[in-house]
Order: sequence, then structure tokens, then C-alpha cells
Amino acid sequence: MAGGPSSSSVPSTPLLKDELDIVIPTIRNLDFLEMWRPFFQPYHLIIVQDGDPSKTIKVPEGFDYELYNRNDINRILGPKASCISFKDSACRCFGYMVSKKKYIYTIDDDCFVSFHLLSASIIFFSVAKDPSGKDINALEQHIKNLLTPSTPFFFNTLYDPFRDGADFVRGYPFSLREGVPTAVSHGLWLNIPDYDAPTQLVKPLERNTRYVDSVLTIPKGTLFPMCGMNLAFNRELIGPAMYFGLMGDGQPIGRYDDMWAGWCTKVICDHLGLGVKTGLPYIWHSKASNPFVNLKKEYNGIFWQEEIIPFFQSATIPKGCNTVQKCYIELSKQVREKLGKVDPYFNKLADAMVTWIESWDELNPLSESANSSANGPVKAK
Amino acid sequence: MAGGPSSSSVPSTPLLKDELDIVIPTIRNLDFLEMWRPFFQPYHLIIVQDGDPSKTIKVPEGFDYELYNRNDINRILGPKASCISFKDSACRCFGYMVSKKKYIYTIDDDCFVSFHLLSASIIFFSVAKDPSGKDINALEQHIKNLLTPSTPFFFNTLYDPFRDGADFVRGYPFSLREGVPTAVSHGLWLNIPDYDAPTQLVKPLERNTRYVDSVLTIPKGTLFPMCGMNLAFNRELIGPAMYFGLMGDGQPIGRYDDMWAGWCTKVICDHLGLGVKTGLPYIWHSKASNPFVNLKKEYNGIFWQEEIIPFFQSATIPKGCNTVQKCYIELSKQVREKLGKVDPYFNKLADAMVTWIESWDELNPLSESANSSANGPVKAK
Repeated sequence: MAGGPSSSSVPSTPLLKDELDIVIPTIRNLDFLEMWRPFFQPYHLIIVQDGDPSKTIKVPEGFDYELYNRNDINRILGPKASCISFKDSACRCFGYMVSKKKYIYTIDDDCFVSFHLLSASIIFFSVAKDPSGKDINALEQHIKNLLTPSTPFFFNTLYDPFRDGADFVRGYPFSLREGVPTAVSHGLWLNIPDYDAPTQLVKPLERNTRYVDSVLTIPKGTLFPMCGMNLAFNRELIGPAMYFGLMGDGQPIGRYDDMWAGWCTKVICDHLGLGVKTGLPYIWHSKASNPFVNLKKEYNGIFWQEEIIPFFQSATIPKGCNTVQKCYIELSKQVREKLGKVDPYFNKLADAMVTWIESWDELNPLSESANSSANGPVKAK
Repeated sequence: MAGGPSSSSVPSTPLLKDELDIVIPTIRNLDFLEMWRPFFQPYHLIIVQDGDPSKTIKVPEGFDYELYNRNDINRILGPKASCISFKDSACRCFGYMVSKKKYIYTIDDDCFVSFHLLSASIIFFSVAKDPSGKDINALEQHIKNLLTPSTPFFFNTLYDPFRDGADFVRGYPFSLREGVPTAVSHGLWLNIPDYDAPTQLVKPLERNTRYVDSVLTIPKGTLFPMCGMNLAFNRELIGPAMYFGLMGDGQPIGRYDDMWAGWCTKVICDHLGLGVKTGLPYIWHSKASNPFVNLKKEYNGIFWQEEIIPFFQSATIPKGCNTVQKCYIELSKQVREKLGKVDPYFNKLADAMVTWIESWDELNPLSESANSSANGPVKAK
């Protein structure tokens, strides 16, 4: 499927080498890292072990990593560890909290290097100058996305205007061309698409083979389904909003961890004037999870999202909320008030949202002030 | 650059053959139609002659067309002809008004058939099964876009969910998957991008070589720069909003005709629950217009759009406006009230907007009731 290191396109100096952590939640040995070695080896990995802490996870040699299991999480957070999900990949957000870096890239352990393939037999794709089977450097593309501005206030029909060979088209207001800082880069997946259980059941053989060569800003006021499989973000700008909620063991819902984070993040980005991009890079998603198991996990989410999404679509955050933390605490209040009626689970989730922020601030004592905008003074809590 | 008819991909039965008119504004002989012959010949053309009516425009043999010059417009509309621009391609909207078909495709006469090319030397692109130099059937793609629903209320990260091989991703609310009727299909351009004069001057050599293989719905509440070069729409759903304004001869502005139509159309589509798509198909835009001439035409537009866009972003249409005509008349009032302060031109434009609707209703006496929604009874004017 993909070339080894010899055909890779690793940049000679890895971008943001000392400013980015790669966060991986896992329940198994991390053999998948072998394929990512040329891309990930220069970076620090934070591995969050999901499930039984007595199990030993093997990490291939040569990687620089720290690994946290449930015992570590309990030890570090004490009673506040209750906000971190157990037996669910939602536990990955613990890695965001303990990181000290400015940027995070998170990826699932069933995702592989995707590649540009030139073939007439399947849909295929290519880029300038090197159309033949070059590996896609997903991390490099995410970093490009994060380091260039977003344009959430007006749609550019030629997509990302900051990309080589593109620009703002006629009719794009000049006052909006500076853009805003990019907080999130949401990458996509070839092969197994990120479908819910009902769609998996109905279309078991559908594969995503379409390489769409674009990156675009999701407009202000528009929500999207954020998938945690292939996701990068600026931790300084938006980190405290990237809480993956209460899922898995003991909870009535699963597979909505990234969705929850995405809804909260987008509402807060819109409020703070930050950008969210989606599109490139693609990773290769190797295997579909079991749709029957997924259906059980998703059932409540599928039902509840019909109320959750209108809630987030109409949520407004008061002007005075000028840090991500303040916005997030405000959202937790609204969740309790408006979604608590839907199910008592949301009261528990609202509590966990507060605990998450308390934990974040304990582990990142300077982060609140780092996030303050010019809107007003930041009060100590 | 492109193959002749022998390499074309004309469908054996042209889609919507009796339900679609192709509207072309022009000041020259329509030799460019030769290249489009395999695609356009089955359809009826409405040619709107821009400028000197004494000049004869030659149309290649074998096409079914009607041609209107300024004398015809004056004869048909009488004093109301003042709402149709002269010496500007904005005159094309007269063609929308006289059409009796459900769908319109409009294209500039410097646009050619684009094609899928497999080449390592420039960016290349292709689709399944036929990666080698197949002509793109722009009209067929527009029709597909118009005949499948739009999804303006929530963003789908795999783009158009109604396309083969795609669907709604996990986290997309099921209640929104039915979508809404599509009113507009906005196609793009390879080669010469649709840049404003300042960008043309700064980047004279930039060419659009990136084929982005996607169609997406522009979310509700988001405005976009609608280009009239390669545009299709459902005339029954949105026709009366497709007024291209007062441009060219005797007006202080040019090259904002399609932008104006796009802003009005998008606000009205959002109000009426209709969808606007952008992306595929691409046409080949052959030559850049003169940036110095363009700068003169655009100067006021570049300046005014800084006020026009916030105006449209905050415009709201009362619930009772349940036809495109009523929405448009309401917008004309708001234009007069809010933009009249910016320049007296907008008072004149507001008048012309009303005249346009009056003319539309005269030529299309049944169209208002055809557009009525279930919100309430339609009153005769």
C-alpha cells in the first residue's frame, strides 16, 4: 500500500520539532508507528493507554515518548481524574492537558500513511511534480494549515487563499483578507470513511477513494462533525476546549467524544475570532470498527444530537468571556441548563467540563493568562 | 488544449434538454460555441447582445437560439428597459427574464471546455475510469448539482453527501440529511482565475491549475463571491433574485454585476431554505481581461463592498416574505435605506431592483404563485 522510508517526503528539518506533541490513545502495541517513523520520529509522543493499566503497551524502538495509563492519570489528577474517560479513546484528551507544547497532533492507531497514487484502476490523485506514489506527509500539511490564517467571515470559492497558486477571488472584501489565527486543522481519511453505525450497516463496502485537493475554513456560525482520527490544533489558542467528554466505561454514550469537542471548540473559536480548517491532509484509515458495537455506543448520541446541535447552533457566549477557559465554563452552565432536561447525563457532563478546566489550570498554571485577549483584564480564579 | 467532439463525453440523452436554456452575453461572433457544440447543441440558447445593436453577431450553424440586442430589450420592456445594463455583460439577466425554462446555465464567451488531463508536468487531475484527457461536461455536472439536494445547515466534511461514493459522516444529524432544494450551482475556472484588478496586477502570471474534485454547499449565513462566468440555477426557485444590477454605460461601477446577484441570491436562499453549491464543474477561462480597465470599473465596488457585505451579512427578511419577488422587493427597501447613505447610486439601484421585479412579473405572469411557499396565501399585487 505505501512506500517505506525510502520513498518518503520527510522534510530535512522537521517543522515545529520542539513545539508539537503527537498524542495517541491506544489499547494495543504501537506497531503502526513503524509506518509513520520517517514522519513522527523527530517529535515527542504522548501515549495515553486506554483500558487495563496492567497491560504493557510496546512502543517500537527509537521513538521519544511518555506513556500514561489509568493509574498515572489517577495519580496525577487525584479525584479530578473522574473527568477523563476510561475504556474509550476519549482518554486522549489527558495527553493534551499534560503536554507543554504549543501544538498537538492526534491520530488513531489504525491510521496509516496515505499516499499519492497514480493509477487508472481506482480513483487516483496526484500533485504537481510528483504524481507517482509519494507518501503524504500529514503532519507537514497540518502544520501548514495551522501556521496560515483562516477566513471564517466570507467564503473563498478557490478554497484556501494562502496556498501556493491560490488567492482571494474578485469580490472578496479586502478588509477580511488578513484572516484570523487558525486554531484547528481537521484532516480527512481515505479508505474507511468516518461513518456512523447506521451508515456502516447500510453501506458496508463503501470506501472513500476521492482525494479532494483542498483545505478550507469552516465559516463562522457553521458547525461540523469533528473527527479525532487525524486532528491537529494550536493548544495555546484552543487547548482547554478540546475536552473529549465522558464516554465509554460507565457512561451511556460512546463515539461522540470528538464530536463533543468539535461542537464546543467551534462555538468558542467563533466567539474568540479563531479559525477552523478542514480538508487536507488525508491519512489511510485501515479498518472499519464493528458496526453492531458502534450502534450500541452511538444510540443515545444519534438521538441526543438532534437536540445538542440546535443547542450549539444557538449558543452565545457573553462578550466578557475572553479566554477559552471562561468560554468553556460558560458553555458548561448552558449545557446544564438546556441539555440537563434532555438527560441527566448532561448534568454529569457539565460537572466534568468544570473539573476538566480546573485540572487544565492546575497542570497549566500560566495558560489562562496566555489566552487572554485585549477585551479586558483576566481575573485570577 | 482540448479534444474535439470525437473525444467528448456527451451523454446519449442530453439531461433536461427541454427544461434548460443557455444564456450567453456577448459583443462578438460566437465562434467559441464550436468547442461547446457536442454539449450545447441539444439545448436552446438565449444570446444577449451587449453594446451596439447595429452590429451583427454571427452564431455558428446548427445551434437553436434566439438573440436579443438593445433595440429588442427596449421594445420588449419599454421604459422598464432602464433596469437592464448597457455595454456590460450584466445585460445577460435579460435572458433569464425572457426564458420560459425551469433551469438556466450562463457562461461567458471566453470560456472553453475544460478537460481531465493526465500529465506529470502540470497539475493533473482525473476521475475514475477515464483518467486520460476526457472533456469535462460542465453542463451535466451543473444539472447533477441542481437535481440533488443541498445541505446548508451543517457542514459535511466529505463534501457533497449525494455524490457517488460519499455520504453523511458520523455526527451529522439525521434530521438534516434530507437536505433542501438546490437553487444555484456555482462552477469554477481553470487557467485564468477570477481575480480583481489589484490581484491581477500583483499576480499577472498566476494561473489556476488545481482541480479540486468536490462540490459543497455554502452554509446558511455565509456569503460568497458568486461569479457569473460558469453558473447555473433553478429559475423557478430563484430566478427573480438573479438580477445583475446596474453596471457599465452611465454607471459608476462595473464587474460587480454577478457579485450583486450573488449577495442578494444567497440572502434570499437562506431565508427561503434553498441551497447554493460551489465547486465542480470547471470551465477553461481563456484570457484575462485588462487589469487597468478593470481597476477603473471596480474602484467603487472595491470601496463600497466594505459596506455592502456587512449590510448583506446582517440583512434579515421578514417571515411573511414567502416568494422570491417579495424577498427581493424587501431587500430593495433595505438597500435604499441602508446603502443609500453610502452613495446615491444605491438609490438608483434600489429603484432598478423594483423595476426588474415588475418586468419579471410582466413577462412571467405565473411565476409569483409558482414560487409561493406554504407560509401563507399569496396576494396579487
